[in-house]
Amino acid sequence: MGKVAIIMGSISDYEVMKDAENILKKFNVDYEIDVVSAHRTPEKMFCFAKEAEDRGTKVIIAAAGGAAHLPGMVASISNLPVIGVPIKGKSLDGLDSLLSIVQMPKGIPVATVAINGAANAAILAVKILATFDEDLMNKLKDYKRELEEDVFNMSKRLIDGQLT
Amino acid sequence: MGKVAIIMGSISDYEVMKDAENILKKFNVDYEIDVVSAHRTPEKMFCFAKEAEDRGTKVIIAAAGGAAHLPGMVASISNLPVIGVPIKGKSLDGLDSLLSIVQMPKGIPVATVAINGAANAAILAVKILATFDEDLMNKLKDYKRELEEDVFNMSKRLIDGQLT
Amino acid sequence: MGKVAIIMGSISDYEVMKDAENILKKFNVDYEIDVVSAHRTPEKMFCFAKEAEDRGTKVIIAAAGGAAHLPGMVASISNLPVIGVPIKGKSLDGLDSLLSIVQMPKGIPVATVAINGAANAAILAVKILATFDEDLMNKLKDYKRELEEDVFNMSKRLIDGQLT
Amino acid sequence: MGKVAIIMGSISDYEVMKDAENILKKFNVDYEIDVVSAHRTPEKMFCFAKEAEDRGTKVIIAAAGGAAHLPGMVASISNLPVIGVPIKGKSLDGLDSLLSIVQMPKGIPVATVAINGAANAAILAVKILATFDEDLMNKLKDYKRELEEDVFNMSKRLIDGQLT
Amino acid sequence: MGKVAIIMGSISDYEVMKDAENILKKFNVDYEIDVVSAHRTPEKMFCFAKEAEDRGTKVIIAAAGGAAHLPGMVASISNLPVIGVPIKGKSLDGLDSLLSIVQMPKGIPVATVAINGAANAAILAVKILATFDEDLMNKLKDYKRELEEDVFNMSKRLIDGQLT
Amino acid sequence: MGKVAIIMGSISDYEVMKDAENILKKFNVDYEIDVVSAHRTPEKMFCFAKEAEDRGTKVIIAAAGGAAHLPGMVASISNLPVIGVPIKGKSLDGLDSLLSIVQMPKGIPVATVAINGAANAAILAVKILATFDEDLMNKLKDYKRELEEDVFNMSKRLIDGQLT
Amino acid sequence: MGKVAIIMGSISDYEVMKDAENILKKFNVDYEIDVVSAHRTPEKMFCFAKEAEDRGTKVIIAAAGGAAHLPGMVASISNLPVIGVPIKGKSLDGLDSLLSIVQMPKGIPVATVAINGAANAAILAVKILATFDEDLMNKLKDYKRELEEDVFNMSKRLIDGQLT
Amino acid sequence: MGKVAIIMGSISDYEVMKDAENILKKFNVDYEIDVVSAHRTPEKMFCFAKEAEDRGTKVIIAAAGGAAHLPGMVASISNLPVIGVPIKGKSLDGLDSLLSIVQMPKGIPVATVAINGAANAAILAVKILATFDEDLMNKLKDYKRELEEDVFNMSKRLIDGQLT
Repeated sequence: MGKVAIIMGSISDYEVMKDAENILKKFNVDYEIDVVSAHRTPEKMFCFAKEAEDRGTKVIIAAAGGAAHLPGMVASISNLPVIGVPIKGKSLDGLDSLLSIVQMPKGIPVATVAINGAANAAILAVKILATFDEDLMNKLKDYKRELEEDVFNMSKRLIDGQLT
Repeated sequence: MGKVAIIMGSISDYEVMKDAENILKKFNVDYEIDVVSAHRTPEKMFCFAKEAEDRGTKVIIAAAGGAAHLPGMVASISNLPVIGVPIKGKSLDGLDSLLSIVQMPKGIPVATVAINGAANAAILAVKILATFDEDLMNKLKDYKRELEEDVFNMSKRLIDGQLT
Repeated sequence: MGKVAIIMGSISDYEVMKDAENILKKFNVDYEIDVVSAHRTPEKMFCFAKEAEDRGTKVIIAAAGGAAHLPGMVASISNLPVIGVPIKGKSLDGLDSLLSIVQMPKGIPVATVAINGAANAAILAVKILATFDEDLMNKLKDYKRELEEDVFNMSKRLIDGQLT
Repeated sequence: MGKVAIIMGSISDYEVMKDAENILKKFNVDYEIDVVSAHRTPEKMFCFAKEAEDRGTKVIIAAAGGAAHLPGMVASISNLPVIGVPIKGKSLDGLDSLLSIVQMPKGIPVATVAINGAANAAILAVKILATFDEDLMNKLKDYKRELEEDVFNMSKRLIDGQLT
Repeated sequence: MGKVAIIMGSISDYEVMKDAENILKKFNVDYEIDVVSAHRTPEKMFCFAKEAEDRGTKVIIAAAGGAAHLPGMVASISNLPVIGVPIKGKSLDGLDSLLSIVQMPKGIPVATVAINGAANAAILAVKILATFDEDLMNKLKDYKRELEEDVFNMSKRLIDGQLT
Repeated sequence: MGKVAIIMGSISDYEVMKDAENILKKFNVDYEIDVVSAHRTPEKMFCFAKEAEDRGTKVIIAAAGGAAHLPGMVASISNLPVIGVPIKGKSLDGLDSLLSIVQMPKGIPVATVAINGAANAAILAVKILATFDEDLMNKLKDYKRELEEDVFNMSKRLIDGQLT
Repeated sequence: MGKVAIIMGSISDYEVMKDAENILKKFNVDYEIDVVSAHRTPEKMFCFAKEAEDRGTKVIIAAAGGAAHLPGMVASISNLPVIGVPIKGKSLDGLDSLLSIVQMPKGIPVATVAINGAANAAILAVKILATFDEDLMNKLKDYKRELEEDVFNMSKRLIDGQLT
Repeated sequence: MGKVAIIMGSISDYEVMKDAENILKKFNVDYEIDVVSAHRTPEKMFCFAKEAEDRGTKVIIAAAGGAAHLPGMVASISNLPVIGVPIKGKSLDGLDSLLSIVQMPKGIPVATVAINGAANAAILAVKILATFDEDLMNKLKDYKRELEEDVFNMSKRLIDGQLT
């Protein structure tokens, strides 16, 4: 029933993906979250992707590491925009995940964010929803001001020499 | 006045980016297209990004190569979703463009597609618009069938031995 | 009905994959060949993988480029051994294809060969079939002698100075 | 006497390779395990590869790191299918091992799995043996269900909020 | 009012950048230091770059990580020489930062130093100022002698066997 | 006698480096140009670097490919600011040249520009000279306007549909 | 009977390796040359490496591409110094060959030269022989002067403006 | 006075390079060891390289990290064979050091060993000296047997299950 669905290939990815959850909570956006593995549960993945639109989902966030096929496969089955989060694994520093997600063939895009960029995936989902939701757009503007504020505070701390 | 704005860092990128134009024409989506350089016309870029939302733009597609700053900078100024297309340059095979676009810091996502993935950037823009436009969603479903059809035709040609 | 099934993501991969076909012809191994795209025909891919075992296929060779998901997805659905051939695309020199195919998670291996290594994929398929087929094993021994012979001929040409 | 032979270039690789052992035990497949170094014991390697087939081995799993020559050399001497496991070393994050194993020339394939992918090497060996062993094929199907079950359990834990 | 301005994208970069500060103190060069984020405070960045020359700044040192746009954007707005310091982030070992900073298009150079090379950025700034400041040039000569002295001391310790 | 000295490791680099020459001519900056090889003429290189300051040179531009040692060695001998241009060679796409030039140790910076970035090296040299030369600073401002003008013209051509 | 043995994995490598031959001819060093493939003729390779020392060879130059095992395997069998030449193949720009040759484990070094560095392999062989051959050492000194001379001539042509 | 000279760019490299020292001690080969920095002590480096041959040195081992110029510069000045050891630094996992050392231009080879391959550099030096020293050649044969013995012992421990 969530407007945004967050799925990940393994529960170990949750450590990273809870940042996405936190952003959606902050923006008060309904979401659902689940473990869906392209490789270990291909049928669940198929059904998930097939039914997402009808269940009212508007945007899918899919995270995976290594030979990361989840975002691309979901994008190949569903018509919804899919945001891919490359998870950094034990070797190759996330380069394998990034390339497996971003280098999709013509016809089937995945909106790829930075390695372990879970928060940004959620912000991107909010931006997509906000294209037709003025209230959400205003919240995004507030968020932008917060980011700015953070930097002003950092600036103050640095200039005041409050760093050790 | 276009719902989608396509901008690119240099006119030489148009060779790649006209694929995005063609997709938007095919889906009958209003768009505008321009050369906007983050590095050579920072003020134009600033104004473009600042005003895009008010001009009715819903999604921005930004293409750039090398130290590709255009997508990320536009995303830092505008609240609209920004899709980044890494353009392959004369060295490093597009890896520099890809990393410069995708590795954005927390707070400012860019929806990155494949190296030279102009068509996919446009399809992603359509998917975003389609989240609240049933008509467009139906066109996406037709497009998916076309892709499928293409593969069935390829399959026929291969099995019939029509290849030399 | 072929013991080996060769599938590829696009007909443009056939230029590379016909080397696999030639090896299987040389070893007189029944095969079938088709275009099956994980991204553009996910349902065909699903059915192909689901039914391969029952149709008598023993080994699957799957080729794909870029975000190459075909070999891994087929391996996640079928219990047959899957051999993956990373196809070199227009950028990144095949590194994206290689990593997308080889870096599979625990539980779902893909037997990956070299970038554009179509012939080797077929030889590996033959080796797998030969584990329980003495006749085929003998042909492999002949093939090994041929390879050796080739080098001896090269050696002769080099030492005799027949090169320009 | 084992149907599968696991060899590794150094005893330090055993930390990784015991995962392969565990999988073979789980599937009740006879195996033998040894340290065989292409570089430090080339003659032992030669004899091992030469005699493996006659000793009844059906599949060889060879693991090595850095300039990883063991899998490729064994494949060049034996006609059996050879599965290569790239071991991650102290620098370059396993990329050197991966490329040294996977990029074999025409004629001599190595079935390469992921960096440190010991378990997958063993599963691949089981898949090869299962092509002519219905009992083993059934165990593979059970294993697939286990993998699926694991994900369902993860899913339950995530949704029930049992994570800290 | 500082001849050199040190700016960085986040206060977490200060851990690295204080080496630049220390060098400028050592050479007794006036400097100012601040947090300026291209992505979170694009307007502050714009103003900073626009006004730097008029405030008497001669050289700008800009540090950033990941999709590091700060040095390039400042160089696109200001006419002052800009020195870029790629900060090593959590993945890709600084390669993303390096390429995002160094691969600037024709017309807008950034003088890039090594990954995390804060001290060198400051020395380069001093070298630039010293082109028209004999006093500073003499200090650079002293510094070179110090570097030499350090190596002679290391040499002595090594040869005397004072290492454990 | 030139304020800027352009040196390169081989005459084959001149194809790239003449862009630097053209920029210096455009800005009317005195320069000298020569082939100086760190590896084939280490003594010439040593003398060149030792004497550059006394001959009135203010900035050195050094270009080299592969194991590119020329910029770093000149920077280790001279106190002048050294700008390094990584030349793309026959393999590795310039990555070897880039890393050999940019990754200098603490104490000896090289101001590195993009791979084959000869024009930018010259612009950077002009920026350095302009820190104490108002006339040159004004020319830089004109140049920036030219760059901007170029983009406006590109923009006009694109929007007017003058592209084929 | 040659003091230097040049071997290569395939006759296609001769295009590159004839540069090594030319250097040895120029220095008047006896050599033998052959095609020896680690993968296709492992026994020939074994015998070659085993017997090289007894046949009077002093230094071995071994060239190979892709999963380049020839230099390392020869080094593991023979006690002679082995110089490895990584041959650039059709993908990955020679990086696979380089890493497969240079990253040898403790105990078995290969003296690796640049990608396609055939001439340098031969010069290195000459340097090794010259450690105990004053005549050859003198020729090396002449060669160094030639290299220097070449640069002086390039310098003259550049300064005289004889380039177009 | 040592037949082998070990030099390194910084005393911090000694942690790695003492392995080279230990090998030379084991083989009873005279050596000298020193810190010589191409960048911080270019003149010392120049003199060292210029005089090495006359002081009776036969082989030089040079270690350096990052933009590692020491091995190549010493090879450009001296006629002795130079062995380069790429030291792994704080970023890029030693790839920068490796490429800076191995990719030397035609005419000036450096015999490059693995990243942090100090022991192998020393073994290579011994192999070079042994080309004209039967006693040393015999020690190398003993060493090879030791390596073999090590593997046999590992094998025994593994098979006996003495691992935890």
